[in-house]
Amino acid sequence: MGSLHEESSNGYHANNTNGKIITCKAAVLWGPKEAFKIEEVEVHPPQKTEVRIKIVCTTICHSDLGAWIAMNKEHRAFPRILGHEAAGIVESVGEGVLDLSEGDHVVPIFNGECGDCVYCKSSKTNLCERYRADPLRSVMIGDGKTRFFTKNGGQPIHHFLNISSFTEYTVLESACVVKINPKAPLEKMSLLGCGISTGLGAAWNTADVKKGSSVAVFGLGSVGLAVAKGARVRGASRIIGVDVNPEKFVNGRAMGVTEFVNPKNYETPVHEVIRKMTKGGVDFSFECAGNVDVLREAFLSTHDGWGLTVVLGIHVTPTTLPIHPMELLEGRRIVGSVFGDFKGKSQLPILADRCMDGEINLEGFITHQLPFAEINEAFKLLAEGKCLRCLLVL
Amino acid sequence: MGSLHEESSNGYHANNTNGKIITCKAAVLWGPKEAFKIEEVEVHPPQKTEVRIKIVCTTICHSDLGAWIAMNKEHRAFPRILGHEAAGIVESVGEGVLDLSEGDHVVPIFNGECGDCVYCKSSKTNLCERYRADPLRSVMIGDGKTRFFTKNGGQPIHHFLNISSFTEYTVLESACVVKINPKAPLEKMSLLGCGISTGLGAAWNTADVKKGSSVAVFGLGSVGLAVAKGARVRGASRIIGVDVNPEKFVNGRAMGVTEFVNPKNYETPVHEVIRKMTKGGVDFSFECAGNVDVLREAFLSTHDGWGLTVVLGIHVTPTTLPIHPMELLEGRRIVGSVFGDFKGKSQLPILADRCMDGEINLEGFITHQLPFAEINEAFKLLAEGKCLRCLLVL
Repeated sequence: MGSLHEESSNGYHANNTNGKIITCKAAVLWGPKEAFKIEEVEVHPPQKTEVRIKIVCTTICHSDLGAWIAMNKEHRAFPRILGHEAAGIVESVGEGVLDLSEGDHVVPIFNGECGDCVYCKSSKTNLCERYRADPLRSVMIGDGKTRFFTKNGGQPIHHFLNISSFTEYTVLESACVVKINPKAPLEKMSLLGCGISTGLGAAWNTADVKKGSSVAVFGLGSVGLAVAKGARVRGASRIIGVDVNPEKFVNGRAMGVTEFVNPKNYETPVHEVIRKMTKGGVDFSFECAGNVDVLREAFLSTHDGWGLTVVLGIHVTPTTLPIHPMELLEGRRIVGSVFGDFKGKSQLPILADRCMDGEINLEGFITHQLPFAEINEAFKLLAEGKCLRCLLVL
Repeated sequence: MGSLHEESSNGYHANNTNGKIITCKAAVLWGPKEAFKIEEVEVHPPQKTEVRIKIVCTTICHSDLGAWIAMNKEHRAFPRILGHEAAGIVESVGEGVLDLSEGDHVVPIFNGECGDCVYCKSSKTNLCERYRADPLRSVMIGDGKTRFFTKNGGQPIHHFLNISSFTEYTVLESACVVKINPKAPLEKMSLLGCGISTGLGAAWNTADVKKGSSVAVFGLGSVGLAVAKGARVRGASRIIGVDVNPEKFVNGRAMGVTEFVNPKNYETPVHEVIRKMTKGGVDFSFECAGNVDVLREAFLSTHDGWGLTVVLGIHVTPTTLPIHPMELLEGRRIVGSVFGDFKGKSQLPILADRCMDGEINLEGFITHQLPFAEINEAFKLLAEGKCLRCLLVL
């Protein structure tokens, strides 16, 4: 392992790597759908406004799977280090970084927050002008270069989604690093880096589910289950889970799903089933499947007049919304949600505290745990729908 | 003319037609795109919860034009009496009608309000469960029959959009009849029956334009200009009018449009022009053209993170929203608006008062006036884009 640090008696410290290149292990992807290769890479020091962190653990999200397949050709950049759901400890900071320092426990965020732009100053969006999620970006924003290089030959290795967590050390913009309570368990905090925050926030911030609301969640992976959990915390009266895989109903019940609909069990479209169950449709539906046919069913499952569909799934090109313009006149609305509309730097520490207090129970999302070296096995589990989150320990 | 009434010294009264069939003139449409035939028709008495009104004046809206062309085959029902923007006086009421009586000055609404259903009781929608706008309906809701018949032969003549105003007398559900201040000028109140309320309400209720907001209006017909007027009343800082017909810019300026964009004058797409003009896009765009290409430009003209597009135009099948699901993740939203999200029975009297007080100036919308018999000429004017509203006086 590439740790060049020593732990002091009162926590993490005694850094002798500051300003130096760190050589460590990373899972490098050399091409679409290839096996990750665990190899030694060089991680350069953080530049101005950047932070280098030691990744303690990382989980795997469906967006990693999408990037691994690299279905969108314009998103391809190889070799690359994927991973964007993780927790770690600051190893060193670059010039101008004032809010973070060596030893801080942190969660990286793929949708950064500078705190100073017109977007960050608006209460209406969490899309920072400069540091928002950008699947096309594969280099650091400051100088357009990478901080990762192959050990042999010094070939640049591309970054991913502002993070790249499948490595023992990574370099990020400080706008993408959130300091959390050092007592918080890092393996659970990893979940807050993407999927769970996305689901909880979609229910709380994007939809603003109220006590007594009815909700339908399409796709019961981690994000969908986090939506269900968020809706339950808000006191939703009915939380209908929709999935074609009946095995997902086991976890669903524990997370707050009150009723299940397996579309395979009906001859009529799911939206008709749900409208009948709910006398007209649910108040909120959440599309967590990334499938336009599912998206249309989710849209039509809501109540006319006020129903809101939140799109969380990742849809690939080329496609358009399967909704007729005139259907909007029936009062159903549709919106997208990135990172659950959380402003990461400002709001994630509060969410982390709520999880530590037990208000939000993160038990159950990590269904598997593997050593970092078995990352290919972990990807297989996720691709086959056999796990919610598989924790990789570095 | 078919008036069987006599005016008393203190207003309208002395009705001897109560409960009887009235024979009067109507403009009957016998088939798509045919000339209207002014002929004598029989108007039966109002049944339970219905109202018979004498139409004093009517204006022509683009939806009438759409129904005249009858592009949507499933909407066809001939012979038919079109018209849904009008003002009149109650001639008689059916059983159970308590809020209206003979002589009341009224504006018919195509999107009714029963006041009692789950929708009417919700603050989130103006779509009444029973009396909402329904282009497929061509008979009375109560008994599924018509109240219009040909004088020779007694053939049923279909109703249109809950109203049918191209006739001296018509029968409507009382949920679709709004009592207004008897001192209000009826020719201007006619405008509130559809287009102007739709535009004003889209700016006020649907979008909730604020002081300082930036706005783009696509399509400068009556609805688009009413949006501009509504945005100006709210104190919008920039109101950009978009139309390919430069003649529309003359009226636009008077209604509140501050800048004009004629797409024909640019080689780049309009959304790029508007984003450049506004440093990122407008807060609100309004699609009043009924064209999916325009709809996409309107959507992309708004600022990412918070821009809202309101769809007011009528789009024909088959088509879908020209928006990629992932584009929703850029924080732009899109919603539809029916009758400007006004609850007609409750809110139109207040709007009428605001117009009478001079707060909302309705001058300029009626650009032409013709006798009822010249309805075919009036349709030609609208179809050729030569008028905003042509008032037909009965």
